[in-house]
Amino acid sequence: MSESPRPEGRSLDALRTVTFEPEIAPHATGSVLVSFGKTRVICAATIENRVPRWMRDQGVEGGWITAEYSMLPYSTLDRKSRDISRGKLDGRTVEIQRLIGRSLRAAVDLKKLPGKTLWLDCDVLQADGGTRTASITGAWVAASLAVKKLMEAGELEENPMADNVAAVSVGVVDGTTRLDLEYVEDRDADVDFNVVMTGDGKFVEVQGTGEEATFSREELDALLEVAGKGIREIVEMQNAVISES
Amino acid sequence: MSESPRPEGRSLDALRTVTFEPEIAPHATGSVLVSFGKTRVICAATIENRVPRWMRDQGVEGGWITAEYSMLPYSTLDRKSRDISRGKLDGRTVEIQRLIGRSLRAAVDLKKLPGKTLWLDCDVLQADGGTRTASITGAWVAASLAVKKLMEAGELEENPMADNVAAVSVGVVDGTTRLDLEYVEDRDADVDFNVVMTGDGKFVEVQGTGEEATFSREELDALLEVAGKGIREIVEMQNAVISES
Amino acid sequence: MSESPRPEGRSLDALRTVTFEPEIAPHATGSVLVSFGKTRVICAATIENRVPRWMRDQGVEGGWITAEYSMLPYSTLDRKSRDISRGKLDGRTVEIQRLIGRSLRAAVDLKKLPGKTLWLDCDVLQADGGTRTASITGAWVAASLAVKKLMEAGELEENPMADNVAAVSVGVVDGTTRLDLEYVEDRDADVDFNVVMTGDGKFVEVQGTGEEATFSREELDALLEVAGKGIREIVEMQNAVISES
Amino acid sequence: MSESPRPEGRSLDALRTVTFEPEIAPHATGSVLVSFGKTRVICAATIENRVPRWMRDQGVEGGWITAEYSMLPYSTLDRKSRDISRGKLDGRTVEIQRLIGRSLRAAVDLKKLPGKTLWLDCDVLQADGGTRTASITGAWVAASLAVKKLMEAGELEENPMADNVAAVSVGVVDGTTRLDLEYVEDRDADVDFNVVMTGDGKFVEVQGTGEEATFSREELDALLEVAGKGIREIVEMQNAVISES
Amino acid sequence: MSESPRPEGRSLDALRTVTFEPEIAPHATGSVLVSFGKTRVICAATIENRVPRWMRDQGVEGGWITAEYSMLPYSTLDRKSRDISRGKLDGRTVEIQRLIGRSLRAAVDLKKLPGKTLWLDCDVLQADGGTRTASITGAWVAASLAVKKLMEAGELEENPMADNVAAVSVGVVDGTTRLDLEYVEDRDADVDFNVVMTGDGKFVEVQGTGEEATFSREELDALLEVAGKGIREIVEMQNAVISES
Amino acid sequence: MSESPRPEGRSLDALRTVTFEPEIAPHATGSVLVSFGKTRVICAATIENRVPRWMRDQGVEGGWITAEYSMLPYSTLDRKSRDISRGKLDGRTVEIQRLIGRSLRAAVDLKKLPGKTLWLDCDVLQADGGTRTASITGAWVAASLAVKKLMEAGELEENPMADNVAAVSVGVVDGTTRLDLEYVEDRDADVDFNVVMTGDGKFVEVQGTGEEATFSREELDALLEVAGKGIREIVEMQNAVISES
Repeated sequence: MSESPRPEGRSLDALRTVTFEPEIAPHATGSVLVSFGKTRVICAATIENRVPRWMRDQGVEGGWITAEYSMLPYSTLDRKSRDISRGKLDGRTVEIQRLIGRSLRAAVDLKKLPGKTLWLDCDVLQADGGTRTASITGAWVAASLAVKKLMEAGELEENPMADNVAAVSVGVVDGTTRLDLEYVEDRDADVDFNVVMTGDGKFVEVQGTGEEATFSREELDALLEVAGKGIREIVEMQNAVISES
Repeated sequence: MSESPRPEGRSLDALRTVTFEPEIAPHATGSVLVSFGKTRVICAATIENRVPRWMRDQGVEGGWITAEYSMLPYSTLDRKSRDISRGKLDGRTVEIQRLIGRSLRAAVDLKKLPGKTLWLDCDVLQADGGTRTASITGAWVAASLAVKKLMEAGELEENPMADNVAAVSVGVVDGTTRLDLEYVEDRDADVDFNVVMTGDGKFVEVQGTGEEATFSREELDALLEVAGKGIREIVEMQNAVISES
Repeated sequence: MSESPRPEGRSLDALRTVTFEPEIAPHATGSVLVSFGKTRVICAATIENRVPRWMRDQGVEGGWITAEYSMLPYSTLDRKSRDISRGKLDGRTVEIQRLIGRSLRAAVDLKKLPGKTLWLDCDVLQADGGTRTASITGAWVAASLAVKKLMEAGELEENPMADNVAAVSVGVVDGTTRLDLEYVEDRDADVDFNVVMTGDGKFVEVQGTGEEATFSREELDALLEVAGKGIREIVEMQNAVISES
Repeated sequence: MSESPRPEGRSLDALRTVTFEPEIAPHATGSVLVSFGKTRVICAATIENRVPRWMRDQGVEGGWITAEYSMLPYSTLDRKSRDISRGKLDGRTVEIQRLIGRSLRAAVDLKKLPGKTLWLDCDVLQADGGTRTASITGAWVAASLAVKKLMEAGELEENPMADNVAAVSVGVVDGTTRLDLEYVEDRDADVDFNVVMTGDGKFVEVQGTGEEATFSREELDALLEVAGKGIREIVEMQNAVISES
Repeated sequence: MSESPRPEGRSLDALRTVTFEPEIAPHATGSVLVSFGKTRVICAATIENRVPRWMRDQGVEGGWITAEYSMLPYSTLDRKSRDISRGKLDGRTVEIQRLIGRSLRAAVDLKKLPGKTLWLDCDVLQADGGTRTASITGAWVAASLAVKKLMEAGELEENPMADNVAAVSVGVVDGTTRLDLEYVEDRDADVDFNVVMTGDGKFVEVQGTGEEATFSREELDALLEVAGKGIREIVEMQNAVISES
Repeated sequence: MSESPRPEGRSLDALRTVTFEPEIAPHATGSVLVSFGKTRVICAATIENRVPRWMRDQGVEGGWITAEYSMLPYSTLDRKSRDISRGKLDGRTVEIQRLIGRSLRAAVDLKKLPGKTLWLDCDVLQADGGTRTASITGAWVAASLAVKKLMEAGELEENPMADNVAAVSVGVVDGTTRLDLEYVEDRDADVDFNVVMTGDGKFVEVQGTGEEATFSREELDALLEVAGKGIREIVEMQNAVISES
């Protein structure tokens, strides 16, 4: 292991330590503090008993899922100004919260959430790379805990959770394909992929970027391979935490 | 005790269980999760190596302390929209963050923070009454932990922390004077005071309001009395957590 | 008198000259130009025949009182930018207009304003300290004049004005307790209190701050004493102007 | 006179009663409360000892004049929301404040205001038609009073006021050409002109609009004729108030 | 002609080459690319099947016309920031879009657009002076094309277009009265008029400004004369393009 | 061909008609109107002779590329409100303009644009699916035309354009893998990919989404295959238009 070029000698295809701490925010319907190494995100699911205006206006049936993401000001080594101080969300935040929402909707049967909006809030407590994929992974756990509580309370007739949704980042750094980049790797990556998959191994979203660089088809194939391995491991951990709660 | 009109039979002059969990946000210079019963607030102190523009423009020496406060959307039983969704801070938030900043500045010697801004961020994780006084109490602990770290690192020559700052709410509910109101009491209070004091028993701030009600001088005296008792107890707990860290 | 440390030899417990000029803004339902020495504020009361959305949504009966405060750009010696130029209200303005609204609501029976919102606008024409307490004092007069007119017109069945509301600032400057601080005193005050009381001597609001300072219980008692004296004098003047109009 | 179709039997070519009350806002360098009948506007001139960024960036010499206009919420019979409540200036306000600034700049020698910005604030206390032309007329008086004070204080070497600037509205109502429209006339006008002229009878600005109507060359000629008559009278009154101050 | 002081030897009373290219934006109901020399504006008319809130609230019958104007960032030689980058419309844009809307409403019978809003969007593709008058001229063509299409589709019972609306700029430059100023002339003009007229020679709007200058009655008369000549020529070209479409 | 399930019988792997009309906006340094069938986008490249603040602050050498994207209000069948009317960019717009900028930066050597910002503005004139990929494709042409002009003018020493950048959308619709989706296909797609590649067949960006659906590895492979075919054809057309200009 000592030959690995990664921080702390981690294998190229190894995840950081992943943990889930449920019920971090008891006033939410479901919540979890998810950690990928030093990256820690509070994920909370709350229920609103109405759907967005566009659904009501268009008469769309079922429910909706919407996500919000923020980095707490003290999550980074240099304090990050709050969104409200700048008066608007930055582009990166908008992209991330749209991605979280889309990812969860892909594996939830919205028809089985009639008249409800499931809010997924992801607030980064500590940032060390991979906050968006940790957010998706944790948001699925928070949503599952919330659904479990609603089912037990008789507020939902059918379970809308069709399958797991989990995500991980992969990238090419110094010519090596690596799983679950931490910040110092992410900063130096030539290629950066975020991959979202379901429990049965289907893709939900693939976003790959070569910022000021490009990548070949072979690199793409290798990146998807290692992402799949990581996500299978994450899904097992998600299922463990849900069954224990 | 079972005759107490308060929730869970608490005495009229008793605090809820108060706890401090340091290092909740390791990227901050100092941080603590403070709890007053079910009210839980993440308080983080971070250092910026410059002072506000007005100090530079006016050539004011020393440093500055500024505070920001927010309620996380899942801190309340009904989800609370983020400030950024409404596009601006509401009046209550503005009042609270000004109060936190003013309170801390009263017991810190800004001359001993040359060229630095001490940011105090208070994010409410769970709200059950008294979030602003818990924030002040926790912000002082976070600031003290940060200063301790800066002193050890040789980044500050003298300790700027002149004394403790702690706060508590008191009120008149159903004709009784009560210490440390929880949400259901706060909602029904005729008179609501927030009192901020130093470790040596001086007042920093007294804010008393009779929303759609008034109060007599006798009531005011009784409220300040019980507030003083509570703050003396909180100061002891603050000192315990600092000396242990 | 010549030994007084105050500007123009004013006694420590003396108000500045207080005047009320009714009907300064004839399109309002009631209006007054209130002066505390060189501090002059236009206070206007206007009626809107509906209540805020939250009252309608929650089915709350009665009416509402809301206040807005601004400093006209030429009220200060250096021109003050308009709120709209900065795009948002500053924190101080938000605090003041919330205080004015709360203070008036404490002595008005909202049940007797069914379906109406009473808007209280306070625009500072000249600022020389104590603009918020002058605003409260004048807003009560404007409201009373408006109510009088509405009663005469048969638009209100019962008089909702339960008692006077008046306010004054007090402070500790150079070690002396002073009533009704003007700007040069306010700037140098160690302790600054705003006290709002009713005609029958009850407190509505007490806000005391030691900006970068603290204060003892004895100082607090002395400040409330002299505030009470000042407010009794102001209440008499309020009553005189109402009975003359 | 009783045959006049106008309110209170005013002649078609008569102004309303025009008055000027100087020093309404003593903290401004110059100020006046101008009245055209029931239309009353506070006009204040204040000096800022720097010029706008674009002048500094482009190295333009001399000074600048800028104007701001607002309607106080209680100036209209139905309360008008503040600009800040809507978060932005409405189009009408923007048009008016640009017009006031342009009009004043046309008759002031900006070279003789080196390094200074002259702010002209116009706040409508009571609105009954013609607030923009009253604002221009009053702003010129406020500016002249301010310049007089600066000349006396030795802060200006040469008098920058080249000539008077005065303005009046004219219009076609019920087929008659009328001078100085009040609100009920303005509301029903087919054609509405605002005319700004100098003391020597030159035009500064002519703005004529047929809202949902058109007008002929003959109507235009008649409107400019009566506007010229009105402005000559206003100029005399401006000069009287300046020489008395 | 070679003695003309104008660019490219144009006569003082000559228009630049004016062209209309219909159907530039096929998803609009009607559209045209209008050119006055190098000034080119995309004008598009789209129909919304509802009227503004104020019309519904006040129960006003008929339809409405509203206009929006913008300069595309690459329309000027130095790139112009988008409105959204600055967060608000600048004053000039607000003035222009209000002018376009008012001008069109003057010659359209809104009663014959029941329940509809006609949106007129004018986006400047290339700016070389006279963009607002080109916009009005083109907006009328786009509106006429849209109305023609609606009439043919049976969506309008009666033709609401009462007459042509066309506009042109005129000015005094170097002591000469000139028609249809291009940018280098506009920049140096002492007097600048925008004139809007109908097909039958009536005025809709006259806006004349002497920025840091004034103008005499004789100059005004000469300017309106040459504007009338230009507008008669433009109206003929408008009619040609409509009859060909 | 008549058996194709696509509109107008297009083959599953065929592009729509692609055209480029250079110099659509002559005030830009380079511009083109790009069409993919009925989707038409104005792409303009303009040069600003300074770099963003963060580059100056961090002392980063070279130049920068930034992109802005908007849909003109008349580009859609139902009029789309301008961004400025809503006061902020929507999330989709933010995502797209970040994608355009990133894509272009991947194939331009920023070191060879010293001290310059290349602005790429993409305004959709008509929208029929694939506006973001058409924007990238057209932005590369506009940038290339601008660079050609700058090289000829001697304002750039070396050609910064390292390779082509082109983009296309692909998707799974009704179980078939299709190239270059038009709006009716895009609306019904189960899987939607945007693929950006260089002239030498490397990937710049791959964004694949299953909105309320998922996709297998086999589907992903087929989509990338057909995307590569389309992009090779687009690159040839880009090169043709550049060499002709």
